[in-house]
Amino acid sequence: MLQQTSSVNAFPKKKNEYQRTIRLDTCIAQKVLYVVGTTLKTNLGRCAPPNSTFFSVKCTPSVKYDIIPPPKESSHLSPITLNEKSVLLISMSGASQYENDSKLSVRYYSQDKDILGNAILHLTALEISLDVDADRDGVVEKNNPNKGSWKWGPDGHGAILLVNCDSERSYFQKPDNEVDYISKLSDLKDMSVMVLRTRGPARLPDGYKLTMHICQGHADGVRVYRPKPRYTSNSISGVANEFAQVLCSNVLSREVPYLGGAAEMNFYVEGLKFPDKDFDGLISISLSLLEPICTGLPETPIFTDTVMFRVAPWIMTPNTLRPVEVFVCSTSDNYSFLKGMRSLVANSGYKLNICHEYMNRGDRWMQDELEFGYIDAPHHRFPVVLDSPRDGKLLDFPYKELLGPDFGYVTRVALRKDVSSLDSFGNLEVSPPVTVNGKKYPLGRIIIGVAFPTTTKGRNMTQVVQDFLWAQKVQQPIALFSDWLLVGHVDEFMTFVPAPDRKGFRLLLASPDAGYKLFRGLKNNGHGQARLFEGRRDQEPITVDDILEDAGFQAENNYVQSCIDWNRDVLKRELGLDDSDIIDLPILFKLQQDEDNEYRAVAFYPDMVNLIVLGKNLGIPKPFGPKVNGRCALEEEMSSLMEDLGLSCTFIDDFASYHRLLGEVHCGSNVRREPFDFKWWNLDM
Amino acid sequence: MLQQTSSVNAFPKKKNEYQRTIRLDTCIAQKVLYVVGTTLKTNLGRCAPPNSTFFSVKCTPSVKYDIIPPPKESSHLSPITLNEKSVLLISMSGASQYENDSKLSVRYYSQDKDILGNAILHLTALEISLDVDADRDGVVEKNNPNKGSWKWGPDGHGAILLVNCDSERSYFQKPDNEVDYISKLSDLKDMSVMVLRTRGPARLPDGYKLTMHICQGHADGVRVYRPKPRYTSNSISGVANEFAQVLCSNVLSREVPYLGGAAEMNFYVEGLKFPDKDFDGLISISLSLLEPICTGLPETPIFTDTVMFRVAPWIMTPNTLRPVEVFVCSTSDNYSFLKGMRSLVANSGYKLNICHEYMNRGDRWMQDELEFGYIDAPHHRFPVVLDSPRDGKLLDFPYKELLGPDFGYVTRVALRKDVSSLDSFGNLEVSPPVTVNGKKYPLGRIIIGVAFPTTTKGRNMTQVVQDFLWAQKVQQPIALFSDWLLVGHVDEFMTFVPAPDRKGFRLLLASPDAGYKLFRGLKNNGHGQARLFEGRRDQEPITVDDILEDAGFQAENNYVQSCIDWNRDVLKRELGLDDSDIIDLPILFKLQQDEDNEYRAVAFYPDMVNLIVLGKNLGIPKPFGPKVNGRCALEEEMSSLMEDLGLSCTFIDDFASYHRLLGEVHCGSNVRREPFDFKWWNLDM
Repeated sequence: MLQQTSSVNAFPKKKNEYQRTIRLDTCIAQKVLYVVGTTLKTNLGRCAPPNSTFFSVKCTPSVKYDIIPPPKESSHLSPITLNEKSVLLISMSGASQYENDSKLSVRYYSQDKDILGNAILHLTALEISLDVDADRDGVVEKNNPNKGSWKWGPDGHGAILLVNCDSERSYFQKPDNEVDYISKLSDLKDMSVMVLRTRGPARLPDGYKLTMHICQGHADGVRVYRPKPRYTSNSISGVANEFAQVLCSNVLSREVPYLGGAAEMNFYVEGLKFPDKDFDGLISISLSLLEPICTGLPETPIFTDTVMFRVAPWIMTPNTLRPVEVFVCSTSDNYSFLKGMRSLVANSGYKLNICHEYMNRGDRWMQDELEFGYIDAPHHRFPVVLDSPRDGKLLDFPYKELLGPDFGYVTRVALRKDVSSLDSFGNLEVSPPVTVNGKKYPLGRIIIGVAFPTTTKGRNMTQVVQDFLWAQKVQQPIALFSDWLLVGHVDEFMTFVPAPDRKGFRLLLASPDAGYKLFRGLKNNGHGQARLFEGRRDQEPITVDDILEDAGFQAENNYVQSCIDWNRDVLKRELGLDDSDIIDLPILFKLQQDEDNEYRAVAFYPDMVNLIVLGKNLGIPKPFGPKVNGRCALEEEMSSLMEDLGLSCTFIDDFASYHRLLGEVHCGSNVRREPFDFKWWNLDM
Repeated sequence: MLQQTSSVNAFPKKKNEYQRTIRLDTCIAQKVLYVVGTTLKTNLGRCAPPNSTFFSVKCTPSVKYDIIPPPKESSHLSPITLNEKSVLLISMSGASQYENDSKLSVRYYSQDKDILGNAILHLTALEISLDVDADRDGVVEKNNPNKGSWKWGPDGHGAILLVNCDSERSYFQKPDNEVDYISKLSDLKDMSVMVLRTRGPARLPDGYKLTMHICQGHADGVRVYRPKPRYTSNSISGVANEFAQVLCSNVLSREVPYLGGAAEMNFYVEGLKFPDKDFDGLISISLSLLEPICTGLPETPIFTDTVMFRVAPWIMTPNTLRPVEVFVCSTSDNYSFLKGMRSLVANSGYKLNICHEYMNRGDRWMQDELEFGYIDAPHHRFPVVLDSPRDGKLLDFPYKELLGPDFGYVTRVALRKDVSSLDSFGNLEVSPPVTVNGKKYPLGRIIIGVAFPTTTKGRNMTQVVQDFLWAQKVQQPIALFSDWLLVGHVDEFMTFVPAPDRKGFRLLLASPDAGYKLFRGLKNNGHGQARLFEGRRDQEPITVDDILEDAGFQAENNYVQSCIDWNRDVLKRELGLDDSDIIDLPILFKLQQDEDNEYRAVAFYPDMVNLIVLGKNLGIPKPFGPKVNGRCALEEEMSSLMEDLGLSCTFIDDFASYHRLLGEVHCGSNVRREPFDFKWWNLDM
């Protein structure tokens, strides 16, 4: 990962490393502003009058000093031999009540102990600390020694920023990070609080000032607000325009007031963009104390305190997390599907959201237009929808219907020509938590489908979305091969369901071999004449015997099995799975020519792996398989496999309105789920 | 840093993790191509005929197999009970001589031990290894288990690529990485050799092929060449057009021939771009064995081997490294400077290169237009000039005069409006090796000058150059404050000289305090009337007394000292220096209004810190200081300080032709130095 840019590393990580060189002057008494916790350092020889041989140091009780190298003289009361390299280190333990209330003087003597000169320092001590929630407990602690850097893991540190990508207003929608003011007071809770704590005299000495600043490289990732001068944090009346912007992409540095006495001033820090290929997510904010020189010269920063934030990544939620609400489209022709879903969702105790036709304009593929995720910080978290560049007729739904208060929105814009069917988010899934060769992925791993890297042709998920997914880091993606499918989505051949044992889940894979095995078993038991699609008016029935006798169809399914096996091998390696973690579902495919006359696979009967997981209830495409003793043999097999895991199967008729359009239950729905209990910043990266 | 993009992680890191699922088929005998070192895995139950209760396995001696879970039967000769989960693992220890020369069969039995079916595998074994110099010894070893990943440090691994930024042709100059063919055979030595080693039957079975591929995200960083088919590596006649491009940004995948028997084929890998903000420097190249399916379907990769390279960073050379050649400009007015430099360089035993007026067009600031560095790999290294976006009249010099065979060129293009005086490379230096709080920087740290981050105004080094410098990683940069100077370069107040003791070097800092101390000493010893600039016709002389009495001038110098002290504190922290590692040089400055009417500092007399280091010889601007007993007091002080380090001072008169134009000896020269002995890949990052 790239380092932070330039200016930041000019400042020390910890205040106690902060040593400032000052000049002694025997001609004029000097006024020095000192920051508690730092050390002033001065070379005693550099400004000594000519022929100085001895020196002595005197100070008020509030001041401490050390002479290096330590003088040979046993007492500091008598003059000490001046060494060309002698250095005086000065510190004070607490803030001054009044300007120049402390003093230190150095007296120089000749060989004969005649006084040659006095260098006098009038000292004013300040306490300054720019504070954040660096220990990630939701509270801004005081002067955390690690606040200036960021470390992953349970023993890590460093504050966290949310991308303020929700919208406080339900109408006039635009994500708040695209609006450069605080539109409503509730917006503050999406920001990270940063506190400037100061203690010292009522006013800063003339010409000194405090300034807050960010570097150019971080400037388009963050904004900082504070209550306008006439309001203090305690007197906020609830009106958003009481807040002024301190820093943004055009203002990299701004003076902030010194309040005097013991004071705290709250700032609100707003994240503007997600980690991506060219942004590692780290943002530093600094506060400097500036010393005046004279008109026309820039002030010198004599003390700088820096805090570091990491922007929270976008996190996906696997099927093993508890559902919150289910989304489906209502179209003119999907009554039976809707009826099935309505009853499944109601019985499971979740909320069903129906996207109506004025919004979906006939686009029923709720899975494909968007992916639900969330962002999380110690102070706040909320769901965020990732809008696909697919942009079908459901295009407006994520922005117009989902974006709102505490519901964020993010998208990646791709060129039209770069977008393919593989950019639909049926091709973007996430595994449950796994451990792979000892490496833990407590938030699981993202799974996408692409073309084989070995072919020059082939469709892919667009690079901007892939870059975004990889840059989130906390659910390191796996690329599968899905381009062998006509539609090309990983959810056509795989899904995850919860399990009470082993790793807490099973990987379900479509398996033509399992399908053939089941059909051969049926034939063997005298059911070769049982028919698939029995009773459907929209599909010619076919017998088990006919299927088993079609050598070409068998060859197509052998090919499909080899494609799925290739993915099976990758999934086993990358998710650390054994064969016992995988269940093969009896599903047959057929090859069909696509618009480029290439042969690609589609499900032969409703693709049961394309299911929806609602806790222990599964909504499964009704396969319309051969009936044995009045029961569908495919449903029976599926139910039996799932019952072993304590899961209950509901078969939903999606044949006419989804299956024949090359999708199934999962393609036609979406589920927003609870976030992980595990906090992403506790990952060991 | 970002992870590699999609496709790469679909392949295992080590060959022995590579397990491939294959299908058994009792209907037709199958031909299987096996890669030595992998394991074939098949589920015995999945394709078993209905009612199978037992099975047995038979194979030729070249084949090894394991049954999991291990059968309870003590001997494999009698039929074994078939478990639904039974898995067969198959491997072979060496390559086949002939196609299908090995065989394995599985026989299925009923409860009564009647034979229900036979699944037969005809096996052909291949050895395939894509090899690179992953152990960094300059030789391509065979199948390094770590070749697919990259790790820093002496116990690290991973191959290295050079950016092929030199030009094999001395005329028609263009860096080779901008030309998409091999212009001369000598170009091959700038590339990394990659060897494809195969062993097996004379030909691959029908329809199988080998393909080499890279992913989209790496494609603009690399090209791969190989000898054209009719040439083998051994018969290269020396003609560059015998090489064909295999991969480049437009060709992400290409078939490569299988030679048969025991064969090696050399490939040549060319790095195209340096690490930068959006490129972490890592590039993977894969080789896959593809299995044919049938016409119209993409072949399936059944084995993939991957190697990973890191592009070598651009590395700067500090003053402590041995010089190779010195560069200066000849102008109509710099005779005395040239004379001094010529004699210094000749006496020091190095080569002097003079850039003549037809090329420099009066631009004498050789330091500012370019920075010398180098790139290094186990197989080759060469110097690389970083061309500044300054683009003064010396603009053409780096490209037209320096770029050539084994002399590389790199630049970063900035918008004209973003380029300031701080983009001149007198503002880009590098420290000798240091250790900071236990962290080692064996290649030193880059040092640049910027404006205080606390001011909204102020000049800066342009972001594209800063991003480039930070992205090289191995000499982690430090940003100093140099905007207080009219010209704004760090070489106006600091440099490094070699030292026989301590850390092997001293940091020299300009110090007005040291200057005043020296002048006050002179006055005190009765030399107050000694005059600076004595005898120069182009500069009014001034006495020591006059200098000491000018309170305004003293105030200006106090300001300058405070600016330098600020940088001193940063340098001490970031380079881990003590005061004893620093020498203060007696140099005074004055403030002068710049074109924006801001006051900024320039050297009052020739700025001795702006010196050139040639081994133990220093070329120092002749300061024209006050003479005491016929000797310049400033030269005497400088010589005395340097003599303690065993360094010899030559004072060069640059007054008229450099100092009065606001530069000195260092600004007017440049030194190309030997590379570090330390290899950058041995850094612990």
